[in-house]
Amino acid sequence: MYRSHTCGELRSGDINKEVTLAGWVQTVRKLGAAITFIDLRDRYGITQLLFGEELSPLLDATPLGREYVIQIKGIVTERTSKNANIPTGDIEITVQSFTILNKSAVPPFTITDETDGGEDLRMKFRYLDLRRNAVKKNIELRYAVSRSARNYLHENGFMDIETPFLIKSSPEGARDFVVPSRMNPGQFYALPQSPQTFKQLLMVSGYDRYYQIVKCFRDEDLRADRQPEFAQIDCEMSFVEQEDILQMFEGLVKRVFKDVKNIDYSDAVQRMSWEDAMWNYGNDKPDIRFGMQLLNLKSAFTRAGNLEATGELINGAGFGVFDNAETVIAIAVPGCAEYSRKQTDELTDWVKRPQIGMQGLVFIKCNPDGTFKSSVDKFYSEDKLKAIATAAGAQSGDLLLIVAGREERTRKAASELRLEMGKRLGLRKADEFKLLWVLDFPLFEYAEEENRWVARHHPFTSPKPSDIPVMINNDPAIANAEKYLEHPYSNIKANAYDMVLNGNEIGGGSIRIFQRELQEKMFAALGMSNEEALDKFGFLLGAFEYGAPPHGGLAFGFDRLCAIIGGSESIRDFIAFPKNNSGRDVMLDAPAAIDQKQFDELQIKLNLQ
Amino acid sequence: MYRSHTCGELRSGDINKEVTLAGWVQTVRKLGAAITFIDLRDRYGITQLLFGEELSPLLDATPLGREYVIQIKGIVTERTSKNANIPTGDIEITVQSFTILNKSAVPPFTITDETDGGEDLRMKFRYLDLRRNAVKKNIELRYAVSRSARNYLHENGFMDIETPFLIKSSPEGARDFVVPSRMNPGQFYALPQSPQTFKQLLMVSGYDRYYQIVKCFRDEDLRADRQPEFAQIDCEMSFVEQEDILQMFEGLVKRVFKDVKNIDYSDAVQRMSWEDAMWNYGNDKPDIRFGMQLLNLKSAFTRAGNLEATGELINGAGFGVFDNAETVIAIAVPGCAEYSRKQTDELTDWVKRPQIGMQGLVFIKCNPDGTFKSSVDKFYSEDKLKAIATAAGAQSGDLLLIVAGREERTRKAASELRLEMGKRLGLRKADEFKLLWVLDFPLFEYAEEENRWVARHHPFTSPKPSDIPVMINNDPAIANAEKYLEHPYSNIKANAYDMVLNGNEIGGGSIRIFQRELQEKMFAALGMSNEEALDKFGFLLGAFEYGAPPHGGLAFGFDRLCAIIGGSESIRDFIAFPKNNSGRDVMLDAPAAIDQKQFDELQIKLNLQ
Repeated sequence: MYRSHTCGELRSGDINKEVTLAGWVQTVRKLGAAITFIDLRDRYGITQLLFGEELSPLLDATPLGREYVIQIKGIVTERTSKNANIPTGDIEITVQSFTILNKSAVPPFTITDETDGGEDLRMKFRYLDLRRNAVKKNIELRYAVSRSARNYLHENGFMDIETPFLIKSSPEGARDFVVPSRMNPGQFYALPQSPQTFKQLLMVSGYDRYYQIVKCFRDEDLRADRQPEFAQIDCEMSFVEQEDILQMFEGLVKRVFKDVKNIDYSDAVQRMSWEDAMWNYGNDKPDIRFGMQLLNLKSAFTRAGNLEATGELINGAGFGVFDNAETVIAIAVPGCAEYSRKQTDELTDWVKRPQIGMQGLVFIKCNPDGTFKSSVDKFYSEDKLKAIATAAGAQSGDLLLIVAGREERTRKAASELRLEMGKRLGLRKADEFKLLWVLDFPLFEYAEEENRWVARHHPFTSPKPSDIPVMINNDPAIANAEKYLEHPYSNIKANAYDMVLNGNEIGGGSIRIFQRELQEKMFAALGMSNEEALDKFGFLLGAFEYGAPPHGGLAFGFDRLCAIIGGSESIRDFIAFPKNNSGRDVMLDAPAAIDQKQFDELQIKLNLQ
Repeated sequence: MYRSHTCGELRSGDINKEVTLAGWVQTVRKLGAAITFIDLRDRYGITQLLFGEELSPLLDATPLGREYVIQIKGIVTERTSKNANIPTGDIEITVQSFTILNKSAVPPFTITDETDGGEDLRMKFRYLDLRRNAVKKNIELRYAVSRSARNYLHENGFMDIETPFLIKSSPEGARDFVVPSRMNPGQFYALPQSPQTFKQLLMVSGYDRYYQIVKCFRDEDLRADRQPEFAQIDCEMSFVEQEDILQMFEGLVKRVFKDVKNIDYSDAVQRMSWEDAMWNYGNDKPDIRFGMQLLNLKSAFTRAGNLEATGELINGAGFGVFDNAETVIAIAVPGCAEYSRKQTDELTDWVKRPQIGMQGLVFIKCNPDGTFKSSVDKFYSEDKLKAIATAAGAQSGDLLLIVAGREERTRKAASELRLEMGKRLGLRKADEFKLLWVLDFPLFEYAEEENRWVARHHPFTSPKPSDIPVMINNDPAIANAEKYLEHPYSNIKANAYDMVLNGNEIGGGSIRIFQRELQEKMFAALGMSNEEALDKFGFLLGAFEYGAPPHGGLAFGFDRLCAIIGGSESIRDFIAFPKNNSGRDVMLDAPAAIDQKQFDELQIKLNLQ
């Protein structure tokens, strides 16, 4: 028995007890020659220790340094100056004896919330970084989320069923990590990008409700905040329609809010079509914690109910930027009409950055005195400015920001600008949570680099029931041939849904194809030959011949879900041992060279270019 | 809404309700021309459907075949002939309308407990095999075990923390699966054989109590019932000694017994030293559901308290087999003195099989009439036989079986013979559970093929506290030089423990080394150079410099734990998608060839020999 209590446990009710504690030396404070206070830390909290040479000459705490691991025996004593900031703040331990269990060198950075260690150093010494309270609470939150999700899913009849990690490489989706097979020379396993086909097979097997919190792998070039291995809460249900799935999984997130953050999310979860999201927010995962929707003043692409997008208000005033633009989009930013020249110049610079890529930014100030001022005054009369502002729903005191250019880029820029202004105005609060379902995605989009249609979700997603006959009866090339916005999307809609939390996609899924004929049509539409479809997915096509039930599901990005709930946008902060942007674990120094013996056994060799 | 109720839900209290069910057609029974009974199956149970053309001429069930997926609407009706074998046996559904949701081809084998499908066929169509009740209950049991273990660990303060899958290849232990890194050409990740070093780092980080149910990977030639990927319940605790760990984890298994099998395991868990296990049972994972311990009549190796092993009773009678043997071991089999010549001949053949490898088997029958008869009567008087039988603890009516030969092989054969006799006598009951801790393992054993000492458990296992000075102060070669039994084991004992259930090792662990100096000594003892130790385990040695706490842990073999609790010895039956003995997934047909593009991107090529 190394301890009778943890460092977070003792209270004033324990005074006069003899206790044994063990933990890490957080701080050492000498009070004159004979008295030393030490804060002893473990996972559960901090307890103050009092070492006094007065008490015993052997109790010289001098050898104890930061991060030493010690065991002490002593008496719980009332503290003279209480510390209301910590639960053990009413007591301290008068130490009677101590043992150094392990020494510590001076850590390369301070084990404090605001550490002096840079990212690289903290990653190399991740085991010390993990001691910091700021990191520990993220790891604890991650566990709380998984525990809550598991409980909810269990109560709703889901079974955790494990699917294999050594599977088969598939031509669709992202790039696979592969694993050479020693027992089958020349052949390779692939690591799963998701358990998609397995969970569908489990539905064919009649397991009805499946879940798994599971690692997935994608060998993609790592953008910021992507990891080569990541975790999903992966779920699938049989005999369900879209509505059943939406209710089940918004229930899951609400339960997590309650269990983890003690938030009662009683609002109905908003729903929005993908088309509305693209037109009104400029992206498919809108942050709806704030308004400032995009007003389409003009668009080369028409849309029912978007008459304002014809450009009536702005065309023909001789302002070439608007006249020649494919698209003109306005955002009404509340309360910013008083922005100085310096502030508007800075915003103009912001949209001109390469990541945003606009040529410029047009302003209309809706002044509180009822006047309207603009950076394009010489082209538009005040009446015209007022008409534009009114159409954009701007209020007195708003600053109207307008971008123009090619459809796709402009829409993306407007979306970024909206998010940036939301951030600057403090409208994107980390502790406010707004869920949104985005629905009615296009089934296909066109991949220019591959010169073919690809599944926007994945090849197992069912079309909307009304679009199934179109898929079945038409040549896939014809069924996909319509173009939407600048980038080609199919007119055929997917029976798919994304869950968005505060502007982040935290989950996505679909009702699946469960009939062989339709699945074959889908593979053909993606340009897969019949032979290739059979080679790669023959087991799934086969399974659909033996009584596959209607089914659908959803996968949450577990890392991201935790990050957003934890009020962060960095998933790396919520992974115990993350990799860097080159896919390296700098603590382990992995990946690394392997031995010649390993190459020989695997019957492969390097072919460095 | 595809259904109002599941197929396992309706009872006589539901009579007259209008319901909608969906599921699979299990059986079709025609009763004359106009009436058809169908058993409709889903995960939750079976409900009988009554289709009658009398009721509606449209309700012709003729098109419905086995494994069709259908949805029906109808009225819950009282059954005339009730079926007490199923919970829904009091009712049936008078069908009013039905929809075929999906057809099914005739399955390649019957979806029944006693299927006509062979192993290969069932593996190829695993999604159909998983429908069988016999398999489904195994998968359900697996989930029940994981749920129970998670609850127990949660209540005891353990946190589920995920560790990475793409790590670094290590020279110790089994062969690694490796993963070429595209972003780091020429370098490879390894898949973890266990999260061992990560869980130790988490203890260094102060997480105090960690667990994970996690996949591990070993690229070993597959013996029966080994899988290249397997699951562990992996646990680690800080500030603990062996006793704390034993109590915590026998508590876990007892909780699983209670939750999953409703068994109150109130017996104290037996403990046995490795040496006792080897001497008295001939192996390190004794099945203690029955006695029949080995009696060592003679051994070339001495052991305190084993005076009978000197061979006094049997030597010098002129029976060369015993006189010349290194070891002679007897087993008293209760109630088998009446075995016929045919039966003893068959047993002799059994021990002569190559897997057992004995030259023969000697019998002494302890007849109920007080006489003793033996196959070696000409060498031993009846008095001598009686003396041997008495020394072996044989009772009247017992059959004494005696094997002799080289120490290691004979001991192993005696162990196998004991287990075989236990099985034949029905003493190894699948529904009886006996836990055992095996303790005090040797720290090292000698690997002849590698010509070096290897860690019997793993290189992170601490020696017994009393043996630590021996490790620190001696040259490792000297510290390891003693030989025990025929195979060399170190005299230094490990602070390690195995949990044994019904003769199967279900878990194992140890108190870990947590001081750099001792860890370096251990690596050196294993023949690792200082450079190699730093290259492969520098992160761990480094971590031990910054205040590593005393810690220890245990990992359960989750697949095996489930199998034993499920009354089976085959782990494959408890894995949803297992691989065969060549490491192949015959359903997916994996591993498989990959594209040239993949080779090019990974900068590797085949080097087939």
